[in-house]
Amino acid sequence: MFKINEDYLKLPGSYLFSTIAKKVSAFQAENPDKKIIRLGIGDVTQPIAPSIIRALHSAVDEMGEAETFHGYAPDLGYAFLRDAIAENDYHARGCDVQADEIFVSDGAKCDCSNIQEIFSSDCKIAVCDPVYPVYVDSNIMAGRGGTYSTLTETFSDVIYMPATETNGFCPEIPDETPDIIYLCSPNNPTGAAMTKGQLQVWVDYANKVGAVIIYDAAYEAYISEENVPHSIYECEGARTCAIELHSFSKNAGFTGLRLGYTVIPKDLKDGDVMLHSLWARRHGTKYNGAPYIIQRAGEAVYSPEGKAELKEQIAYYMKNARVIYDGLKAAGYQVSGGVNSPYIWMKTPKGMTSWEFFDQLLKNVQVVGTPGSGFGPSGEGYFRLTAFGTYENTVAAVERFKSL
Amino acid sequence: MFKINEDYLKLPGSYLFSTIAKKVSAFQAENPDKKIIRLGIGDVTQPIAPSIIRALHSAVDEMGEAETFHGYAPDLGYAFLRDAIAENDYHARGCDVQADEIFVSDGAKCDCSNIQEIFSSDCKIAVCDPVYPVYVDSNIMAGRGGTYSTLTETFSDVIYMPATETNGFCPEIPDETPDIIYLCSPNNPTGAAMTKGQLQVWVDYANKVGAVIIYDAAYEAYISEENVPHSIYECEGARTCAIELHSFSKNAGFTGLRLGYTVIPKDLKDGDVMLHSLWARRHGTKYNGAPYIIQRAGEAVYSPEGKAELKEQIAYYMKNARVIYDGLKAAGYQVSGGVNSPYIWMKTPKGMTSWEFFDQLLKNVQVVGTPGSGFGPSGEGYFRLTAFGTYENTVAAVERFKSL
Repeated sequence: MFKINEDYLKLPGSYLFSTIAKKVSAFQAENPDKKIIRLGIGDVTQPIAPSIIRALHSAVDEMGEAETFHGYAPDLGYAFLRDAIAENDYHARGCDVQADEIFVSDGAKCDCSNIQEIFSSDCKIAVCDPVYPVYVDSNIMAGRGGTYSTLTETFSDVIYMPATETNGFCPEIPDETPDIIYLCSPNNPTGAAMTKGQLQVWVDYANKVGAVIIYDAAYEAYISEENVPHSIYECEGARTCAIELHSFSKNAGFTGLRLGYTVIPKDLKDGDVMLHSLWARRHGTKYNGAPYIIQRAGEAVYSPEGKAELKEQIAYYMKNARVIYDGLKAAGYQVSGGVNSPYIWMKTPKGMTSWEFFDQLLKNVQVVGTPGSGFGPSGEGYFRLTAFGTYENTVAAVERFKSL
Repeated sequence: MFKINEDYLKLPGSYLFSTIAKKVSAFQAENPDKKIIRLGIGDVTQPIAPSIIRALHSAVDEMGEAETFHGYAPDLGYAFLRDAIAENDYHARGCDVQADEIFVSDGAKCDCSNIQEIFSSDCKIAVCDPVYPVYVDSNIMAGRGGTYSTLTETFSDVIYMPATETNGFCPEIPDETPDIIYLCSPNNPTGAAMTKGQLQVWVDYANKVGAVIIYDAAYEAYISEENVPHSIYECEGARTCAIELHSFSKNAGFTGLRLGYTVIPKDLKDGDVMLHSLWARRHGTKYNGAPYIIQRAGEAVYSPEGKAELKEQIAYYMKNARVIYDGLKAAGYQVSGGVNSPYIWMKTPKGMTSWEFFDQLLKNVQVVGTPGSGFGPSGEGYFRLTAFGTYENTVAAVERFKSL
């Protein structure tokens, strides 16, 4: 008789964003005339840039002709894309990352949830709190959770590193030593970004205790300050302790196109075994590559035209971030983030819980945000807003906040 | 100190098709003037059909305009595609499968390797021997292998069900009771297909012992005989014991586009828990959907024009299958498969091992096939050829075989 993976049953509720989507749908069904503004899920709204659209059309044409048709992609991605990534995201920044250390995938969500597979099931993970739920949930599913406490809303085997007002939303080295440390900077959900000096402390610590850092750089394109690193490989010693995850979703609007990549330096080893080899084995066995046409779209991200167009796109969203930040601050709310990040992290007013505020916002002014508690216990009393809406909707949402 | 997943180290060698690719590259590098014909990996060669190309272009245009841009896809796939699948692949065949039991993904390889995650790690798996390596490898990685014997080339905890000449390459119910049974019909690599009666025996057995069948229907489009089922849900009782996997790679040439789907009926349960819910949770947590433009391409597969064009494409490949089957038979080789499948399974001549024959073929006549032993111990002494080449190359390859 087959048995299910019981660890799945430990997951509290459904995936955060599915829950929000259901609540919003239910409200809309009951109130069909109300116009809802969504600043909840981190989904972009601007169309794909013209040069990327051209690359897509051209690749589609190739797929329609026998001479230029492309079947299965190389396991780890096409060389044209991996070379463009190595050159632009690393060499241009003085980082020692080679093209054959880059694994192209269909997005950072898959990579950040699958990466734990190459580690022993008794590895102990540490996560920031609040945190992108996927890091925790994927480890719970793999049996690294222990028991769940409904009182503290935490798992017994997970090390939580609070990111709070007190530490400027940048977590400190935990008391207990982890084996795997998830870091995301600029951070989702708080919008806080680590300086190079702050990140170097983590790299040195990981090398000292033999931990590996899973570094999620999904939001690096939003960095506006000089002393904030775009890659963990800007820090000395990162090649022996860090895996880096990148998304094309936020820097190029690929949420609906699906493309990402993971870097595993060949210097990152457990004894003689390179983590690079294990991840390559996983890719070869359990994955068949991102679509050719999407990889060509990824290449166009690094063309001169692509870069120029995307710079404008990022500026558009960052103008929204400024509108939200300034508008809410002026309206008396306590806000942070939004400077190196498309996320604004606000304190809920009048001591409301995150979900109370969510419900009130939806009901009274039809603005959707993400309840901070959905990201972990230290997110309680906070609320995440994203700059990914249209400018018009963002301005309108801020006006609605003021009317609350 | 982090530790790796030691189960990865149990996998013998690299992924089969990576090994072949490396051998072929090495030979080509040493013999740049030789023209190699590849009938090895099951990759298609015909371009994407015109109506699908049009759908892709149209969807790309949508992505370039704010009004029609699509971000994150719904967790389980767009309704337009799931409805088309339910209607055409199931309702039209009288199968009771609803659209909300269909999970759209980026391909059957991912699905068939990920599906094991929702089961307990102590579930015992049974696989045909020979078998598509991904079923076994993904379970080894998840700790369901036990110990590997280099003598027998088998894992102690896996139940192997030999598919040999004796049983017409259709395995029999094993002596030991499995929890999870992987079946693929029409079969990769042998090309054999189960009749509805034969499959019904498995469905009845699974329901009796409480096993779940993972049914890989990737090659159903190649079925030419009336009594061979296109879906396991044509069998009575399959809704309480079977998961079905589909690929768009072979029926529509999507190897480079990436699209597939999995069906989990809501009647398939462990106690109160629907496997459907667990897989939905996995999709929501660890996956972000297939690209919008690829899902639109999938929809076009079911349009009248798409169906007509793909019927021709399948006929093209099946003509190749006939060329290989008839040609090799006339040349004195022992062959099977190729009637309901794009694969021809041949016995190696003169008692050669599969890899000896691979090397000889590559060296002497520059034809690449897949060594049967790469699919499992009972594949030793066999060789797989695919009908996915061009007609011209297929004819040329058969001539080369004759000259051996």
